[in-house]
Amino acid sequence: MITQTAGHTDIRATNLAAVLGFLRREAPCSRAAIASGTGLNKATVTSIVGDLLERRLVRETQQTQNHVGRPATLLVLDGSAYAAVGLEVSANGLSALAFDTAGDQLLRWHRAGPGADAGPAKTIAALAVLARRAISTVQSSGREVLGITVGVPGLIDRDGVVVLAAGLGWRDVRLRTELTAALGRPDIPVAVDNDANLGALADQLHGPFAGCDNLIHLTGDTGIGAGVIADGRLLRGDLGYAGEIGHLRLVADGPLCGCGRRGCLEALAGLPAILSRSDPAADPDPQVQLEHLIRRAEAGEAAVTKILAEAGTHLGNGIAALVNVLNPAAITLGGSYALLADHLIPSIEQVLSESVITPDAGGCTIAPSAFPRTATTLGAAAHSLISLNSGRLPKLTVNS
Amino acid sequence: MITQTAGHTDIRATNLAAVLGFLRREAPCSRAAIASGTGLNKATVTSIVGDLLERRLVRETQQTQNHVGRPATLLVLDGSAYAAVGLEVSANGLSALAFDTAGDQLLRWHRAGPGADAGPAKTIAALAVLARRAISTVQSSGREVLGITVGVPGLIDRDGVVVLAAGLGWRDVRLRTELTAALGRPDIPVAVDNDANLGALADQLHGPFAGCDNLIHLTGDTGIGAGVIADGRLLRGDLGYAGEIGHLRLVADGPLCGCGRRGCLEALAGLPAILSRSDPAADPDPQVQLEHLIRRAEAGEAAVTKILAEAGTHLGNGIAALVNVLNPAAITLGGSYALLADHLIPSIEQVLSESVITPDAGGCTIAPSAFPRTATTLGAAAHSLISLNSGRLPKLTVNS
Repeated sequence: MITQTAGHTDIRATNLAAVLGFLRREAPCSRAAIASGTGLNKATVTSIVGDLLERRLVRETQQTQNHVGRPATLLVLDGSAYAAVGLEVSANGLSALAFDTAGDQLLRWHRAGPGADAGPAKTIAALAVLARRAISTVQSSGREVLGITVGVPGLIDRDGVVVLAAGLGWRDVRLRTELTAALGRPDIPVAVDNDANLGALADQLHGPFAGCDNLIHLTGDTGIGAGVIADGRLLRGDLGYAGEIGHLRLVADGPLCGCGRRGCLEALAGLPAILSRSDPAADPDPQVQLEHLIRRAEAGEAAVTKILAEAGTHLGNGIAALVNVLNPAAITLGGSYALLADHLIPSIEQVLSESVITPDAGGCTIAPSAFPRTATTLGAAAHSLISLNSGRLPKLTVNS
Repeated sequence: MITQTAGHTDIRATNLAAVLGFLRREAPCSRAAIASGTGLNKATVTSIVGDLLERRLVRETQQTQNHVGRPATLLVLDGSAYAAVGLEVSANGLSALAFDTAGDQLLRWHRAGPGADAGPAKTIAALAVLARRAISTVQSSGREVLGITVGVPGLIDRDGVVVLAAGLGWRDVRLRTELTAALGRPDIPVAVDNDANLGALADQLHGPFAGCDNLIHLTGDTGIGAGVIADGRLLRGDLGYAGEIGHLRLVADGPLCGCGRRGCLEALAGLPAILSRSDPAADPDPQVQLEHLIRRAEAGEAAVTKILAEAGTHLGNGIAALVNVLNPAAITLGGSYALLADHLIPSIEQVLSESVITPDAGGCTIAPSAFPRTATTLGAAAHSLISLNSGRLPKLTVNS
C-alpha cells in the first residue's frame, strides 16, 4: 500500500499530546473521560497522567463527577510549574524574556552586547550570564525552566550551529553546544533558531494574527529574513535554511551587498541601506538614526518619503516572490519595518497588485508585526512550550 | 497553556491512521497486538478493524500466533479491493491512469482533447467519458474506485474551481462540481488539483526521490509551476495557490508574457518561448517542434545549445528564489524540461552557485523527473490513496 509518511511516529508522544489536548479542551475531567474521549486504553491514560502529575503539569482536584456512580478524582492542567526562557543575540545587544506555561510573563530584559568586534566567545559568555540570571529568577518564583531557545539573525543548521550570521560577523559558531557547556545545566535543553522563524512563532501565537496557519514574519534590522508558518507549522526546509530572502537578486548590476553580490534585496531595502541613503552623515548609532528617520518621515519630509517609497517597492518585489511561492494569508513586518510600516506598505501593496498572478495577491494582508522589539524573544520562549505540547515532556531533575 | 494547533483533530481519523500504519509495519498481527502497539483500547481497535474489514481494506487470515496461549485470528492488509483514478487535462489532450492500493497499474490512456478553442463544457464532457470508461475498467477487474483526482495546469482553489488556466483558456470553471454532475456517481469523490502539486506527489512516492521530505517538482509544458513538498507534506498556502513561480518578474522590461506583464519567468524560459526562439517557422504542432529541438540539441547545434543555456540561466534565477525560500533537498524538472535536462542543468547549477546564500545551494540536487509524461496522472491517482492513509475511509456503496 502506498503511503505518505512524515518520519517515524513516536506513539508515546502522539498519545501524550492527545491527552494534553483533551485536558486543554475538557478539564476538569477524569481519567475515564480521557480514555473514552481519546480512544486510548485506561492503562495508557493512567501511565501518561502519572508522568504529567510527577512533573506538576497536571494536578488532581477534590471535585467529583456530576452523574450517578461513585466519585472520581478530576484532573486539571497546572500552568504554574514551568516556564520557558527566550534569548536573542543581535547587533543591538542581548535580550531575555520568560513566561510560564499559563502564559504569565516573568521577566523581560535587554542589555548592550560586548560589541560586534568582540567575537563569539565573549558574546556567548555574556549570554550565559544573562541566561543564568533568568534561570535563577524563574526558579525563585517556584517554577522550573522547561527549556531555553536562542534567536540569532543568521543561517542556523539543525544542530544549533550558526553557519553564517553576517550582521554579527559569525561563521560556523557551535552556539547550542557552547552555550550548553557554559551554562553547566545539562538538565535544561538549549535550542538555537533563526530570528525570523521565532518572530513568526510569536505572531502565530500572540496578537492580531494569532492562530493564522499561513503567516510570514519579515525581519528588518540587521538583515532581511522570512519566518514562514505554512499549514500551521514552521517551514524549515531540508537543512533548516528556509526563508532566506535577503539575497534574492532583484536588480542586475544593482548596489553592492555585504555578501559580495550585487542587487540583493538587503542591499536595496535593508535598514542600513535606507539609513545611509537618508542621512549618510548622521549619528553613528543606528537606533538614533532610525528614530530620526521616523520623525522626518512623520513630518512628511519629501526626500525621506521618497526613499521609503523606493525601499517599499524593492521590498514589494521580494514579498511578491514569497506571495507567489507560498500564498500566505498575512505577512507581518517586524523590527524596524514595523516602525516604518505606514511609509512602506502603500508601495508594497502597489507592487503586489502588479506582480502577483493570483487575484487580490492571493488574499494576502500586509501589516506591521505587533512585536517590533520582542518578536524573537517571545517566539523563542514559545518554542520550548511547543515541544511540550507535541508530547515531549521535561526530564525530571533530582531535586525537583 | 499556549498551544500551536493545526486545525481541529479528528480523533477517529487519527486512530484509524495509527491502526493502518501499524498494520503496514507489522502485519500479520492480531487485534490485541494492534491495541498494545498503538496504545488504543480494545473496543476502539475492534471497531476500526470492523470498518476496515467491511471495506475489504483488511482481511483475516487463518494463521495463529506463535506463542503460548489460545490461537488468535491475524489480520493482513488487502490491496486488491480499491483503485484510484488520476486524470489530466492539458493543452496536449486528456490522460488517465489508475492503480490499485497494492500499487499495480490498471490502465494508462492518452487521447486528444476537443481542442483549446472548444471551451470548458466540451472538455469536461470528454473528460467524463474518459472517467466513466476508467471506472468501468477498474470495476470489471473486481475493484472499487476510491476516488478520482484531476490535474489541471492552473490556479485551483480549495473548492476545485479552476480560477485561471491560461494555457487552456479557462477562467472560473467549477470543474469539481461539473465533473461530479457529469459522472452521475455521487459515491465517488472527485478532487481537482494543480498539475505541479500532483507531479510533486508522484516524485515523492515513486522513482529516485521517493520518500524525500523536501522536494519541488517543476512543470515545463504549457506554463511553469512548482509543486512543493515541505517537511513531508504538500504545501498549499492559504487559498491553495502556492508554487506559482511562472510569473516571477526576473527582467525589468523583458519580453511580453501571456499574462500581460513583462519579464516573467514563463516569457523568458517557458517552452513556447524556447520553441519560438529556436525555430519560429516550424511545424505548428509543439510536440513535433520539441522533438526537433531535442534532436538539434543532441547534435550539438550551437544556436540551439545557446538558446537552451540562456533558458537554463533564466530558469536558474527562478529556481534560486525557490531554493532561498524553501531550502529543498531536490528539485525535479518535469515535462519538456525533463527531456531537455542535460542542456538546462549546467546553466541552472551555475546560477545557483552564484545566487543562493547558503553553502552548496543548501544541498539541493537538480535532476530530471523520472516521469516526464505521467507525473500529473500518477500523482493524481496517488492523491486519493493519501486520503485513505490519513484515516478517511471510502463510503460503503449499497451494492458493494
